Amino acid sequence: MTNSLQSTKPIGIFDSGVGGLTVLKALRERLPDESFVYLGDTARLPYGTKSPTSILRYAKQATRHLQQRSIKLLVIACNTASAVALEDLQTELQPLPVIGVVHPGASAAVLARPSGRHLVLATEATVRLGAYGDAIRALDSSASVEELPCELLVALAEEGWTTGGIAEAIVARYLQPFLSGRNEARPASIILGCTHFPILKNTIRRVAGDQVSIVDSAGTTAAVVADLLQLRNLERKDGTRSRVDLLATDGARRFARVGGAFLGEDLSADDVEVVDL
Amino acid sequence: MTNSLQSTKPIGIFDSGVGGLTVLKALRERLPDESFVYLGDTARLPYGTKSPTSILRYAKQATRHLQQRSIKLLVIACNTASAVALEDLQTELQPLPVIGVVHPGASAAVLARPSGRHLVLATEATVRLGAYGDAIRALDSSASVEELPCELLVALAEEGWTTGGIAEAIVARYLQPFLSGRNEARPASIILGCTHFPILKNTIRRVAGDQVSIVDSAGTTAAVVADLLQLRNLERKDGTRSRVDLLATDGARRFARVGGAFLGEDLSADDVEVVDL
Repeated sequence: MTNSLQSTKPIGIFDSGVGGLTVLKALRERLPDESFVYLGDTARLPYGTKSPTSILRYAKQATRHLQQRSIKLLVIACNTASAVALEDLQTELQPLPVIGVVHPGASAAVLARPSGRHLVLATEATVRLGAYGDAIRALDSSASVEELPCELLVALAEEGWTTGGIAEAIVARYLQPFLSGRNEARPASIILGCTHFPILKNTIRRVAGDQVSIVDSAGTTAAVVADLLQLRNLERKDGTRSRVDLLATDGARRFARVGGAFLGEDLSADDVEVVDL
Repeated sequence: MTNSLQSTKPIGIFDSGVGGLTVLKALRERLPDESFVYLGDTARLPYGTKSPTSILRYAKQATRHLQQRSIKLLVIACNTASAVALEDLQTELQPLPVIGVVHPGASAAVLARPSGRHLVLATEATVRLGAYGDAIRALDSSASVEELPCELLVALAEEGWTTGGIAEAIVARYLQPFLSGRNEARPASIILGCTHFPILKNTIRRVAGDQVSIVDSAGTTAAVVADLLQLRNLERKDGTRSRVDLLATDGARRFARVGGAFLGEDLSADDVEVVDL
């Protein structure tokens, strides 16, 4: 049985800004036939330094807008919003399937390093909520988890200074307390717990060395979405050309300029529609 | 003639977040008998990467709230909001006197280096509007002005990494194109065109050398406010103890932790009232 009316609808992706484009990139690679509508809440970014109350309110406004665009599934491509709002959004939007990036990231880390020591690099809000720690320990009770707020890495990624001496010095300053001890005290995995951080992966690798597994949520989230579409018979198979709509709540020009690095392709302001929530 | 009913009212100060506390600090030093009510729009910061439309809307909401607190004068202690919204706010709030930080900063630079080359370090939005260039050339037609967006300095100041190798490397990367040429091509003044930047002043001095004048708006703005209070007979002279109320639109704990460095004294979350606009 096909669910043809449903299946042609786009997948909705919501992020506080452009960081979630790393998740869109992984989704497009994994699901090239699907259409996507991506909403970046650039008017109110960053979420990472804000309170849970504000983040939940913003996330609800943004996802209501995506519902009006008739999405068939929602991906919360922002770790902070996933940590704060996933359960509320799942309740509010049901029966729409809602997937966050924290649980896929936690699964990827546990698979890569069972019973391991994990270090989560994230925003202040994500760290304060301890969402990665909870998700990892629920999967692997023998794992240990430390979570580190790294706000400056968000600005570094947005500025595009992702390699070179300054990026390495900043990453080294954050990681130094975790890398200076005995080998067995070092983390086995570093989890990129903010969607801005995958574009800093090579720099983090240089600083942290070859022994550590560097895990991000994008690929695992795309795999979870692919499985769920198949399970619910929601895969798009009508053969028409897929499309990607990019929406932002502010600043199409900046979205295009900064976002291109995250999506891995050049964008122009004309590619971005500004919407009011 | 005294204007006693008016004069006891507080001075309102509005900023996108905690950076404007550098202006509050200068105002308190200059006007120790005055009371102040400071509003940081932390729910929507930073303004520097947002569009003029959004910034103007936010500034109007915030200043309406301050009007309800019966202020006698409004200081827009945010360069971005001053660049975008000063004239609109002056019109909307009249007869309330409204003072921004761009014109006082421009005056200070022209006084320090007449006919000089000025380099303005600011946010993207402030640079895009060219507000400092306009203000300086209006005062000194023989001056030359370059404006440089430095978003990463905002994050650096918020993280508190204001001195040391990383801060110097970041400042040097921004300034390098302006410092590498012949002496006479170098800026005579560097204007700290964002209220976050005064806490980076020592680092900027180390990178830029002793020849350059480093100018910020805080002291000059306080002098302009003092003159205006005197002119309008609005000075507070009732001898009662002055007070400072700190308001934020989100995150009292973060406001206190990060803001202390800007105000130059320790703050606790209990010192900050969270308001909804």
